[in-house]
Amino acid sequence: MSAAPDLILAGGDVLLHEGGWRVIRTDVTVKGGRVAAVGQPGTGERPGTGDGERGKRAILVRDCGGCLIIPGLIQAHVHLCQTLFRGMADDLRLEEWLARRIWPLEAAHTEETVYWSAMLGAAELLLGGTTAVLDMETVRHTPSAFKALERIGIRAVAGKCLMDAHPEGAPLELAESTDAALAEAESLARRWHGAAGDRLRVCFAPRFVPSCSGPLLRAASELANLFGAQLHTHAAETIVERETVLRTTGMEEIAYLDSVGISGKRATLAHCVWVDPHEVARLARQGTNVAHCPSSNLKLGSGIAKVPELLEAGCRVALGADGAACNNRLDMFAEMRLAALIQKPRLGADALPAGKVLELATLGGARALGLEDEIGTIAVGRRADLVVMDLHGPHVTPDGADPVSHLVYAACSSDVRDVFVDGRPVVLGHELVTAPAEEIVREAGRSARELRRLARLA
Amino acid sequence: MSAAPDLILAGGDVLLHEGGWRVIRTDVTVKGGRVAAVGQPGTGERPGTGDGERGKRAILVRDCGGCLIIPGLIQAHVHLCQTLFRGMADDLRLEEWLARRIWPLEAAHTEETVYWSAMLGAAELLLGGTTAVLDMETVRHTPSAFKALERIGIRAVAGKCLMDAHPEGAPLELAESTDAALAEAESLARRWHGAAGDRLRVCFAPRFVPSCSGPLLRAASELANLFGAQLHTHAAETIVERETVLRTTGMEEIAYLDSVGISGKRATLAHCVWVDPHEVARLARQGTNVAHCPSSNLKLGSGIAKVPELLEAGCRVALGADGAACNNRLDMFAEMRLAALIQKPRLGADALPAGKVLELATLGGARALGLEDEIGTIAVGRRADLVVMDLHGPHVTPDGADPVSHLVYAACSSDVRDVFVDGRPVVLGHELVTAPAEEIVREAGRSARELRRLARLA
Repeated sequence: MSAAPDLILAGGDVLLHEGGWRVIRTDVTVKGGRVAAVGQPGTGERPGTGDGERGKRAILVRDCGGCLIIPGLIQAHVHLCQTLFRGMADDLRLEEWLARRIWPLEAAHTEETVYWSAMLGAAELLLGGTTAVLDMETVRHTPSAFKALERIGIRAVAGKCLMDAHPEGAPLELAESTDAALAEAESLARRWHGAAGDRLRVCFAPRFVPSCSGPLLRAASELANLFGAQLHTHAAETIVERETVLRTTGMEEIAYLDSVGISGKRATLAHCVWVDPHEVARLARQGTNVAHCPSSNLKLGSGIAKVPELLEAGCRVALGADGAACNNRLDMFAEMRLAALIQKPRLGADALPAGKVLELATLGGARALGLEDEIGTIAVGRRADLVVMDLHGPHVTPDGADPVSHLVYAACSSDVRDVFVDGRPVVLGHELVTAPAEEIVREAGRSARELRRLARLA
Repeated sequence: MSAAPDLILAGGDVLLHEGGWRVIRTDVTVKGGRVAAVGQPGTGERPGTGDGERGKRAILVRDCGGCLIIPGLIQAHVHLCQTLFRGMADDLRLEEWLARRIWPLEAAHTEETVYWSAMLGAAELLLGGTTAVLDMETVRHTPSAFKALERIGIRAVAGKCLMDAHPEGAPLELAESTDAALAEAESLARRWHGAAGDRLRVCFAPRFVPSCSGPLLRAASELANLFGAQLHTHAAETIVERETVLRTTGMEEIAYLDSVGISGKRATLAHCVWVDPHEVARLARQGTNVAHCPSSNLKLGSGIAKVPELLEAGCRVALGADGAACNNRLDMFAEMRLAALIQKPRLGADALPAGKVLELATLGGARALGLEDEIGTIAVGRRADLVVMDLHGPHVTPDGADPVSHLVYAACSSDVRDVFVDGRPVVLGHELVTAPAEEIVREAGRSARELRRLARLA
């Protein structure tokens, strides 16, 4: 690590987490991709007031006066392969949504369309202040997604979708043998786990119990242990799923997943809408992560996860947008606000307050990605995944109010000015700097037309 | 009306409503503040391709190629006087919210703070594509709000809050006699009803049954008839309110309101969360407007209004953000998306589809404001309240999908490029042009500090 900083965010209001949230006006200094100092203004090393060179390293000093600097937001459940499906699968019941839209579109994916789907999704995420995701891709072409993630600069823990039990109505293109699925997942892990300076990691991602054999699930768990990787699956999203698992395995879903080794801190289960109190107790006891996806759960009519009860029981909870096919935003500000709002009619207006929701979107996400010592807060030694919010629009005025309330209830993705991942600028002045947004939008449009044609939806 | 157009929106995709929504690529020509033609491209009169003068009238030709032109969005329930309270009253139960924050802050309002609160709220609304609102101000200083609305260029139907029964816990500054309240409301109507070329209208706005005497409610209804104005109140927001009305009047709330003349097309009732089927039938039979406020109802823990059932029964339903003290956005895109999402867990993913929600936000709003022949769609003869959406960001990509889905589920206020009210530009290129946004933000911040000081919340 060089003695000279890579980056100084100068004079902003920095949101720190020390028990609760608190804001101090100070500099954040970044060296070697990590936060090196959160100092008082003027006390840090200040190599000039503009961009400059010191030796061979470029130093960026970014004026953040009047801005709020927050930890990068973390989404613990997304499907970047579905970003191209946005607006093609709305207002449909889950069975129709899967059989008529998602299965045919996923089956139609090519290397190229998977690439542009990931680029499009990651562009939206970065522009909206999400710096890290736990991603489930489709069955094939996952290397293309990793290439996109490598290029665009987001932090990602991503896995190919594992499914060896052919779901009813799914096209044959999505069928795989247990061995082939595992071999490809292992090969992905050898190539990509720890790539890009450990910015990219692999997870093992069985789709959900009804589309996976017991041996596949057990082997995925063993591979995760072998690679020190996360497990990422769906659980208890709908009543139908819950009943299917009970009928086919003879066990309740959370207990069954535990029995095949998908539990504990290494596992993240998306949704968990339909879990009984004794299942909640098991999740809490084992430290299993729950990825709450409020927009998706509402839009597909799945229900409302009992997040305050999960937290009360001691569960580890994170947030995610799920895919653009069922959301249709990949916008953490929308998810935070919704996560807070939907609990209140049931439990009262003081349920799930803003500060707690922001913890789910940062600390909770870090835990779900298996990165709790690396990201999630702004602190010396943590990865410099940082977001600079420009909260000067009428919709986030007046200032002087609680900044956490403004973040959760009023702010929008469009208030994100700069984004850094490992201290590297990925968004500056509301513009993506790692790839041309115009190219992404154009190629994504072309790829979506191609997918509609291949899936015969055009 | 001059023969020359005031404005041509050239070459955009225009969203028309003819039974359902449909998009055609064409020009929209505006004369005398109204839509004069929705023609094929090239067939309209085209006085050049830039801004220019023809005789004494400035003609603006605005290139809308690649943009979506939609009718101005309409919010049928807002409290602009609460915009300055944003972020000061979160995660509190309704009683605490009112007694500890809203009452003291409303009581502290001065002429100046009411003015900047309206300016701030209207700025946010216009920048987010809302061109018309049904507004309830506080008890005092409503002329200041009208001055702000006149200056900033939004269409508004606004009324002073009427309340002559002193609510428990409310400061004495908010107390008024029945006669004084009515006299001031009538005086406002004489000055402002039909002002600014009929862009501003007055409504008569009793706060809600528990804070109003029967004579006040009856007189408000008579004044509304006299002036040809709307009635605007809250109804059935909470169970407590419902039970209070039953206990104090001996009648169910919707029937009681009807008995004092607050019903029919001339009346708009905000919320209606707690209405029984026979009350829904009455609302439908009488053509009373319901203003659904999904964010507010969730955030205050009030519940979820049964909007699909209201529509099925034939009710007239519109949408609103309520106030920034309980939302905290005044963002119609947030409200549309939420209105659609929250019905689906209860009724299925096909409940309240995107096209229907967009009707509530346009046609429904026009009815609730008493302007159903004037605004709400893009059609020859209607007021030229128009919004140009620039849907090129990654979050609204790919194109080629259903534009109505993108509007309701994916688009954001920040996608609003231009806004016209009566054909007059109020937002161009994402910038407010009728007043400097920086001044509004600065003065709103100063006013909010003053209010906190006066209300002893600082």
